[in-house]
Amino acid sequence: MTLPMLAAISFALQSTTVDAFRIEGMSHAHSFEMLRDLTKGIGGRLSGSPQAAKAVQWGQKKMTSLGFENVHLVPCKVPHWVRGKTERAAIIQGSRRTPLAVCVLGGSVSTPRGGLTGEVIEVTSLDEVATLGEKVRGKIVFYNRSFDPTLLNTFAAYGGAVDQRSQGAVVAAKSGAIATVVRSMSSALDDVPHTGSMSYADGVPKIPGFALSTLAANRLDQSLSQDPHLRLSLECNSQTLADVDSASVVGEIRGSEKPDEIIVMGGHLDSWDLGEGAHDDGAGCVQAMEALSLIKRLGLRPKRTIRVVLFMNEENGLRGGRSYADAKKLETHIAAIESDSGGFAPRSFGVTGTPNQVAKIQSWLPDLQTVGIERIHVGGGGADIGPLGPSGTVLIGLIPESQRYFDYHHSKNDTLDKVNPRELQLGAISMAILAWKLSEEGT
Amino acid sequence: MTLPMLAAISFALQSTTVDAFRIEGMSHAHSFEMLRDLTKGIGGRLSGSPQAAKAVQWGQKKMTSLGFENVHLVPCKVPHWVRGKTERAAIIQGSRRTPLAVCVLGGSVSTPRGGLTGEVIEVTSLDEVATLGEKVRGKIVFYNRSFDPTLLNTFAAYGGAVDQRSQGAVVAAKSGAIATVVRSMSSALDDVPHTGSMSYADGVPKIPGFALSTLAANRLDQSLSQDPHLRLSLECNSQTLADVDSASVVGEIRGSEKPDEIIVMGGHLDSWDLGEGAHDDGAGCVQAMEALSLIKRLGLRPKRTIRVVLFMNEENGLRGGRSYADAKKLETHIAAIESDSGGFAPRSFGVTGTPNQVAKIQSWLPDLQTVGIERIHVGGGGADIGPLGPSGTVLIGLIPESQRYFDYHHSKNDTLDKVNPRELQLGAISMAILAWKLSEEGT
Repeated sequence: MTLPMLAAISFALQSTTVDAFRIEGMSHAHSFEMLRDLTKGIGGRLSGSPQAAKAVQWGQKKMTSLGFENVHLVPCKVPHWVRGKTERAAIIQGSRRTPLAVCVLGGSVSTPRGGLTGEVIEVTSLDEVATLGEKVRGKIVFYNRSFDPTLLNTFAAYGGAVDQRSQGAVVAAKSGAIATVVRSMSSALDDVPHTGSMSYADGVPKIPGFALSTLAANRLDQSLSQDPHLRLSLECNSQTLADVDSASVVGEIRGSEKPDEIIVMGGHLDSWDLGEGAHDDGAGCVQAMEALSLIKRLGLRPKRTIRVVLFMNEENGLRGGRSYADAKKLETHIAAIESDSGGFAPRSFGVTGTPNQVAKIQSWLPDLQTVGIERIHVGGGGADIGPLGPSGTVLIGLIPESQRYFDYHHSKNDTLDKVNPRELQLGAISMAILAWKLSEEGT
Repeated sequence: MTLPMLAAISFALQSTTVDAFRIEGMSHAHSFEMLRDLTKGIGGRLSGSPQAAKAVQWGQKKMTSLGFENVHLVPCKVPHWVRGKTERAAIIQGSRRTPLAVCVLGGSVSTPRGGLTGEVIEVTSLDEVATLGEKVRGKIVFYNRSFDPTLLNTFAAYGGAVDQRSQGAVVAAKSGAIATVVRSMSSALDDVPHTGSMSYADGVPKIPGFALSTLAANRLDQSLSQDPHLRLSLECNSQTLADVDSASVVGEIRGSEKPDEIIVMGGHLDSWDLGEGAHDDGAGCVQAMEALSLIKRLGLRPKRTIRVVLFMNEENGLRGGRSYADAKKLETHIAAIESDSGGFAPRSFGVTGTPNQVAKIQSWLPDLQTVGIERIHVGGGGADIGPLGPSGTVLIGLIPESQRYFDYHHSKNDTLDKVNPRELQLGAISMAILAWKLSEEGT
């Protein structure tokens, strides 16, 4: 048999294996049912909550029942912030009170009991607050910069607006503000507020932070243009309790030839508390588990170890990602794939690595096109796998269709019914194929 | 100025124009609001219905208010089938009656008053009915072949199953069956029946045709495996009335240099009656109108004429597509773009033309990538523009993400809330860019 003939047969085998991923994966799809367990059986899974603890148990049990090897927990301490039962905002004009759709931002301190009231100063950037100086003192700062609708990728629009939510309170408090409200980080115009993390800085007063729905933000903006001295009333009773013991969940299939070279696939198990954490990021968790389960169902034994990690506490601390990288620092992670952009139809992967590493993965595009991946971008990864980067791990992010993601993200609308079973499963299969190629051919 | 410099400036201008489509199109998006008018203001628009007549008026008024030129109607006679108020199916076992989620197929004759009852013979293909011969006589034929879940493109899965709906009654009646029920043409497993057209043949008895929800089809299949002699009861009172006068709606911007060379953009104005015809095909209608309106808003005057056609009666007759091609047969249509695959995120265009024509359009891919088009496929078009093909028109179909389409198609769930405004608008802009390139550079 000539070498070209061998190569042809090898190619044929390989092509059959790739088709088998799609055929078995789409004929017997399990990711949506796993996501139903996680979202409907457990619900929102904010770090430190009883639901997050249940999710850890569920993940461990699920991986065991799927036949994964070396199933174990990697412990971490996580923040324990509790929203509280009260979250209210209203425009006060004389005796008239106009309620606004609002939620407290994650990590926010409470208002005084009974709430606080103040005049509002509307801005569209952090810089603007700094230039306003003393005019801010005693006021509520209203950050109202929208997503840029002209950006095709909604993650870019989010990236261009989210500093208002994450840094807004620190910047406002430095100038003496008493609270902040921010326009929800959303592509949609509706009455649903979106939460998310906010931060404080040492030596700067901690002031409460709220998010208005995009419609409420428009209403406040219009009201201010008519009555710049209207007052806004805000109330919440959120609190931060002591850190809680938690964990990320790990399971794997050991490699047959190079078991010490590890490929990680993962998502994050925690979520915000307002919805069910379906797209963010139950989707990524079940896709990673389904991808490894699919490799098992196909009877394949990878040359390198393929490991699933369900990271804890991506949303407000990244303690799971950091503790995993620390606990496993003596192991060799050649690549890590994260799915944390929603369970929508997969469109591409983004790869951070050397040009040769990226080119090698790009050469596998024909295999990935069988499940709808159209290209391999340069650059990308994920928050949880980020701490593996400094040790040379190739970081890869699954990039699904992004248009709908920020309609639901961090809101009560991030629920199972927004996920399409086929789109979710195609993402899982694309991760399985990519992990398999990495396990066979390395980086 | 050297020639390369001129070329560089020309390229820069061109690139600016392309960006302007996205920037203006996403900053001031009108397609979703137009779709709200059509779906919430008018609703389902089955050919011959008062709603279809309203939609024609609406389209004409809308095109006029958008400033299109030469707004007019192209008349056609359309079938007028009426569903009736009764559509029922139930499994009968002794005194037990188990209702099933069902709808009548479009074009079906009525059952006798009070319904009909018969034993059921389950098959998975038309051929199987033919081989069963006399066993079919007096029975209800149950077509239960699912979509092939392993096909990435759900339109391919639909194409592989829809003969059961469209031809099932003719084939069954030839063998003496008294009625047919078909598994709904859907990718989803739920309790929502999907209608669609069925046909009869001269000289073959007309028997009623129904569609079961996919869950109801599974239930009937399971019941039959336990009790092959169970009886199914079916009732409907649909009827076909006399043909009705209707029309397709036309408007355009005349070309400045070659006005007699026409580029058509269109969708179909009629829909099935169960939902609102949002994805099928209100989306295509408003995208075509928004695309032409966007060219106007940008202050562009195309070299060739760009025309919008809202075709009537795609669903059950194609009278609009045929009458348009006939009425305009002396005009030169160099290209026609149809959007009739849902208002989801655009992924590609499919082009039917000579290899040189396809290659020319493929060379414009970089412009189309600015709004998410990843490739130009060979082959494609649309039902309404099909009759233009024989005269040499390049036929082009917009191909959006397909995974969700058949969850809603022809069912009560084809409603506005299933459409994402950004996804819809990106499709409109992609059509505008492509029509603009065709108008500037020809085929």
